[in-house]
Amino acid sequence: MANRLITFTTDFGLSDHFVGTMKGIVAGIAGQARVIDITHDIVPYNVPEAAFVIAEAWPYFPKRTIHVVVVDPGVGSARRPILAEAGGHFFIAPDNGVLSMVFDAAPHKVRAISNPKLMRRKISRTFHGRDVFAPAAAHLAKGAQAAAFGKLIHDYIRIGITRPSPAGKDAWRGTILKVDRFGNLITNFTARDFAGINARPFEMRSGSQRIHRLALTYAETEVGDLFVIVGSSGYLEIAANQTSAASLLGCSAGAPVELDLY
Amino acid sequence: MANRLITFTTDFGLSDHFVGTMKGIVAGIAGQARVIDITHDIVPYNVPEAAFVIAEAWPYFPKRTIHVVVVDPGVGSARRPILAEAGGHFFIAPDNGVLSMVFDAAPHKVRAISNPKLMRRKISRTFHGRDVFAPAAAHLAKGAQAAAFGKLIHDYIRIGITRPSPAGKDAWRGTILKVDRFGNLITNFTARDFAGINARPFEMRSGSQRIHRLALTYAETEVGDLFVIVGSSGYLEIAANQTSAASLLGCSAGAPVELDLY
Amino acid sequence: MANRLITFTTDFGLSDHFVGTMKGIVAGIAGQARVIDITHDIVPYNVPEAAFVIAEAWPYFPKRTIHVVVVDPGVGSARRPILAEAGGHFFIAPDNGVLSMVFDAAPHKVRAISNPKLMRRKISRTFHGRDVFAPAAAHLAKGAQAAAFGKLIHDYIRIGITRPSPAGKDAWRGTILKVDRFGNLITNFTARDFAGINARPFEMRSGSQRIHRLALTYAETEVGDLFVIVGSSGYLEIAANQTSAASLLGCSAGAPVELDLY
Repeated sequence: MANRLITFTTDFGLSDHFVGTMKGIVAGIAGQARVIDITHDIVPYNVPEAAFVIAEAWPYFPKRTIHVVVVDPGVGSARRPILAEAGGHFFIAPDNGVLSMVFDAAPHKVRAISNPKLMRRKISRTFHGRDVFAPAAAHLAKGAQAAAFGKLIHDYIRIGITRPSPAGKDAWRGTILKVDRFGNLITNFTARDFAGINARPFEMRSGSQRIHRLALTYAETEVGDLFVIVGSSGYLEIAANQTSAASLLGCSAGAPVELDLY
Repeated sequence: MANRLITFTTDFGLSDHFVGTMKGIVAGIAGQARVIDITHDIVPYNVPEAAFVIAEAWPYFPKRTIHVVVVDPGVGSARRPILAEAGGHFFIAPDNGVLSMVFDAAPHKVRAISNPKLMRRKISRTFHGRDVFAPAAAHLAKGAQAAAFGKLIHDYIRIGITRPSPAGKDAWRGTILKVDRFGNLITNFTARDFAGINARPFEMRSGSQRIHRLALTYAETEVGDLFVIVGSSGYLEIAANQTSAASLLGCSAGAPVELDLY
Repeated sequence: MANRLITFTTDFGLSDHFVGTMKGIVAGIAGQARVIDITHDIVPYNVPEAAFVIAEAWPYFPKRTIHVVVVDPGVGSARRPILAEAGGHFFIAPDNGVLSMVFDAAPHKVRAISNPKLMRRKISRTFHGRDVFAPAAAHLAKGAQAAAFGKLIHDYIRIGITRPSPAGKDAWRGTILKVDRFGNLITNFTARDFAGINARPFEMRSGSQRIHRLALTYAETEVGDLFVIVGSSGYLEIAANQTSAASLLGCSAGAPVELDLY
């Protein structure tokens, strides 16, 4: 049976014809395939943010879903397009590390896409979403076998998804992975590895603020309160009740975060 | 026959994985269901705005459509998820008044959703869109009966959708319900209740401006003109030809509007 | 066989109920039709930008796709709704020139939509997307014949899509058609007509900058470099590596561009 569900994650935005055009290509090749948008608002060229977003989303889709991730500062260069199988899903992306967090989470096989029959005949230098990635997804959805796309490779790129590093006794230095719609700052401290903050006083510092409070729910806080909360992803997030924590701290993705346990 | 059409109205925005993840959950439970987005750009936590938006949209969908509305400042607290039947449609939302304008418009039955078999096994504290509301919609789309979700309740929350209040003889004070994409200010004065402005001179005041003109169409006005027009929703709107009335007035949702008939 | 694929291109944005409502109308009339969004972020009332966007997107869709384009500053006036057949596709739009670049590209027939049975019974003065254009598309998707919509017309509006005009020997003056998501400035110089820049030194001027470099790919440039590149549409674009060229130049759509070949 063909795989008929495709997701798109890109930095193309929604104000141009780019995403619609990719869906037109899919519809022309695999009329029964369905496309679901994860997001097209990845910060332009931000490969680590896209790596985080697709890692958050894919486990909630049914097996055999085909995930297309196009954040591709190297478009037009020699970087390869790849097709990965991981966790029973398929992933199509440029070989630039954007699938690193998927690879961290699940055993995987990676192929370099090289079969020109599974691309558009004419490949532009700047829009491989339309010319390479969307056609590959559509052909896979229509029933093409993974092996038909190209050979297995082992030298694909993985980027170190930063984890907090020790910065003294019971002290660590981490990073903001993403600012979400509500201004919450998603850190790379996982609730599992840093369960200590449930039991001990702590200080988390980022931007202009020092935070000492862990909240279990938004509902237990007052409007404007600033606190740490375990996000839906399992990471510690710096959040504020009905307010943007990012604005309160003056911080954005990539900013440092320090944690001390007392 | 199963209900297969689902709509989403949230304040989640489109820049995170939230909405895509909810659609993945739906696809995994009810592969044939189709999701249509109403909007994900409700002002964060703004329950009255979401109440207005879903009230505007649902009558244009076919019967048995399942409308999911997630604007949920109380997520993680004891507030209940509810399933309502109204006007031949289904509505799934937190019990915070967000369905009030639907309830104003149609006879309805409301249930508290309590059946854990129709939710995800593990419920996060912060993302009930994924863990509670999307699964409920998908199970309903797949054929679950409304009664399976939980018991009928009568103490669900309704918020007073403000109507203009009298402020003297032939004078009223109302509110801006929403600023739309074009900068039009949708007031809570209905054309039906305030048909007087068709026949009599009037003054509408909001922000820095006084408006005395009623236009029947944009086309009869000049670029930059400021006027009152009957919007597609049946409410009086303050609009400007090819310009943002919101900018001209310096006003946003929630601002007061005064109307005098002479 | 019915046509079941519909695209939407509008200036309605995604923060209101407008687009969702149009999809509800389609679902009610033609339950099997599928809607793909091209974009809803056309600059409000900007007919030329919409003309460019639909011209870029439609060739990548399968034949018999129905393209709905609603950028309609004249809504409520006497301007006609039209149904065009071009290149094996269908187009539904207000008669204001928004299909001009489609008409430039393909032989076409145009009808004035006048059959009230293929519209909503009650037509608002401000939301023909819901009341006229979406129903027309849905009825066409459901199998209505083009001829049922209304009579062929020949006096439909076409706007001159500006091409660069000569401004001296080997010198031209053109226009920025669109600023894309990445801040690239799409000019109306086509790579085909201005192939000279491949062989000869040139200067392109727009806003505050003079550009002398043609790049084949982004990958051959450094972060921050400003250059001309052949875009995926076949037009020359002013671009900057991982930076917004629009910000560097201080330019937006409609700005003049000058080109000299030496």
